[in-house]
Amino acid sequence: MNSTIILKGNILYTPRPSEFVAIQQGYVIAVDGVVVHCGESIPPAYGEHPITDYGDHLIIPGFVDTHAHAPQYCNRGLGMDKELLPWLETYTFPEEAKFSDKEYARLVYGAFVHDLWRNGTTRSILFGTIHKDSTLVLMELLQKAGLSAYVGKVNMDRNSPEFLIEDTHQSLADTKEWLEASAQFGPLVKPIITPRFVPSCTSELMSGLGNLAQAYNVPVQSHLSENHGEIDWVAALLPEAANYTDVYYEHHLMGKVPTVMAHCIHLSDVEMDRMAETQTMVSHCPYSNVNLSSGIAPIRKLFERKIPIGLGSDISGGHIVSMAKVLTEAIGLSKMKWVEVDQMYAPLTLSEAFYMATKGGGKFFGKVGSFEKGCELDALVIDDTTLFDPNERSLEERLERWLYVGDDRHIVERYVAGKVAPEPTN
Amino acid sequence: MNSTIILKGNILYTPRPSEFVAIQQGYVIAVDGVVVHCGESIPPAYGEHPITDYGDHLIIPGFVDTHAHAPQYCNRGLGMDKELLPWLETYTFPEEAKFSDKEYARLVYGAFVHDLWRNGTTRSILFGTIHKDSTLVLMELLQKAGLSAYVGKVNMDRNSPEFLIEDTHQSLADTKEWLEASAQFGPLVKPIITPRFVPSCTSELMSGLGNLAQAYNVPVQSHLSENHGEIDWVAALLPEAANYTDVYYEHHLMGKVPTVMAHCIHLSDVEMDRMAETQTMVSHCPYSNVNLSSGIAPIRKLFERKIPIGLGSDISGGHIVSMAKVLTEAIGLSKMKWVEVDQMYAPLTLSEAFYMATKGGGKFFGKVGSFEKGCELDALVIDDTTLFDPNERSLEERLERWLYVGDDRHIVERYVAGKVAPEPTN
Repeated sequence: MNSTIILKGNILYTPRPSEFVAIQQGYVIAVDGVVVHCGESIPPAYGEHPITDYGDHLIIPGFVDTHAHAPQYCNRGLGMDKELLPWLETYTFPEEAKFSDKEYARLVYGAFVHDLWRNGTTRSILFGTIHKDSTLVLMELLQKAGLSAYVGKVNMDRNSPEFLIEDTHQSLADTKEWLEASAQFGPLVKPIITPRFVPSCTSELMSGLGNLAQAYNVPVQSHLSENHGEIDWVAALLPEAANYTDVYYEHHLMGKVPTVMAHCIHLSDVEMDRMAETQTMVSHCPYSNVNLSSGIAPIRKLFERKIPIGLGSDISGGHIVSMAKVLTEAIGLSKMKWVEVDQMYAPLTLSEAFYMATKGGGKFFGKVGSFEKGCELDALVIDDTTLFDPNERSLEERLERWLYVGDDRHIVERYVAGKVAPEPTN
Repeated sequence: MNSTIILKGNILYTPRPSEFVAIQQGYVIAVDGVVVHCGESIPPAYGEHPITDYGDHLIIPGFVDTHAHAPQYCNRGLGMDKELLPWLETYTFPEEAKFSDKEYARLVYGAFVHDLWRNGTTRSILFGTIHKDSTLVLMELLQKAGLSAYVGKVNMDRNSPEFLIEDTHQSLADTKEWLEASAQFGPLVKPIITPRFVPSCTSELMSGLGNLAQAYNVPVQSHLSENHGEIDWVAALLPEAANYTDVYYEHHLMGKVPTVMAHCIHLSDVEMDRMAETQTMVSHCPYSNVNLSSGIAPIRKLFERKIPIGLGSDISGGHIVSMAKVLTEAIGLSKMKWVEVDQMYAPLTLSEAFYMATKGGGKFFGKVGSFEKGCELDALVIDDTTLFDPNERSLEERLERWLYVGDDRHIVERYVAGKVAPEPTN
């Protein structure tokens, strides 16, 4: 009962950060959602299968968003004149409190999932809120939309507004219950352990979450080293810790299961060594880092140390869902680091940023984000004909232009793990 | 034969950089294209006139783009991994050469003018190419679209590719002929003297252009202090000049008629003094400065010295036509200057950036970019209902969100000097 699909079009992907593979009028073939061939012709074994021909359109891997807060969707583009901590107090926490109401959650999460779909984000790693039932609603909506995601019920038991603080034992009990309920959603929508960040979690809570992650073999996500105020706060809360990174490490929230940490802007060399040793993924969130004046992450340095890097929208610290725009912003920010701060940080190239937004972040899901053999087939079909240009352009130039100036209007089809994801009706 | 219009809706504008005026369900009234009243009610004298009621929509001033290269429209979003000088050689100059063909010009300029319209840019200050006839085509298309602009035939007689270099005398003769032909386009579309930049203009050409600007009472635009390579080049070409700025000043291209200079990233204090003394406008082009790794202009410092500042898309050094996006990028860049370079540069606030994109740049056109009495009425009507949010928001919050996450799909009407500008058909 194998299901074989063959897509034809102008194919572009980045097997390595350093280069695009571009195939004019090529074919990508998947069996049961997994790529078996990508090239200029169809191998004889697949000669009998029907072809979905996308003509002159571009076919690229689906985008991977490695960090977004689904419940902050209504706050995108608001409060952009504030820094992290006051912004959390004024906008974020009051909004997240509303997700104690499952119906409010269904309304907002439905709109958010539609926006992920619209912008071609086929995979995402998401924060929910502390509310387990609303978090299950988000997982249900993603599954119905045919999108893949890791979704986390958030844990926070200190230094938070009264209306968002959990009792430590209840938090762990709720997390266990939610982990077990999550099994219903199948292979594309899975749970991820989600301590909000060190300042809002007691040591007891973090240890308990580290144990749950290992017991259920579930990955971990959190925030790390976003802002100097936050870093100083962690040092004051845990004066015995060697550094911010080691707080997570010592609580087994890093190194035991796969972990992704958002931001990582101000890491010391010792902390970078720990990230590399544990192969903890950095979720680089350029729009958020700009909006909240957090600073420019040293992406070139992290990259050279072989730390895995994905890109994140960080809705709503970041305001833009589109990973095409997030990746061009990452390039722009890297240029500003190079020109304004230190010429040792060579700017990101287009292929490097595209890699991070596809295969780089995709590693967290297994083999995802590329059209190499063995990868799950996530794909976007791009019709760029309305981007006016009477001149002949290479496929790379057409892709560059769409990434910089195109938008969701040009995405005409989305595939996730080999299946078309139609527009979510909710 | 006075023509009176009354618009009703949620009105926002920035009479000063420091604050928005926001009027819930207010009225803006214009007679013969000029605002006579903006407030919460209709003065008795206008009680008999019909009202155009935009319901719950936002009404804001039209955007002013103080720097864009119309002939580079086809190159937007291409070659973004290059710096200024190689990017000019590879992409810009070969494209501009095509504008010797008036039909090619009509095709590309038509698409560009449509994109200005689509994004709500009611006023713009544009570079054409060296070709006078094609430049007249651009002016004709703007006039037909009902948009207002200063348009320049470019001058360049050295250090340029052979196919774009002018003979000095022919360049001045063509400019004179074009200035005279420009009179046909009426008050909304006017000529501006446009030496490309110092490296591509001989002293003789610059002097001749300075004389023409004064003789015809026409303003001047050019580029200034964008990139270190360019600045060093100017110093090598004119070793006797005190600095880059003074080359323009000494040739009467600054201080005699209104002048706007794009970029101004690396000005010395002495140069800033000259800009302030001559009230030369800076066109700050944040996307371009990022894309070409030019650096972050010290906008706070320029602002404090009372130098006039507008914002520019700089198509195609910048890739984004939308001034809503250019203004949010200006805010983002100013935050990076503050956090990564020097905390003396306080980040731009939303109202400051909005002011620059409306009334700030509008000053080049007279009284434009605000709804204060005496201003020409340029307005955009924004329907933000499809930007999902079940929560009540203030008018400022709704505007902030639209600027950050909205797009042309939400602009439902454009007014220029009191008249609706319908979609250009061309």
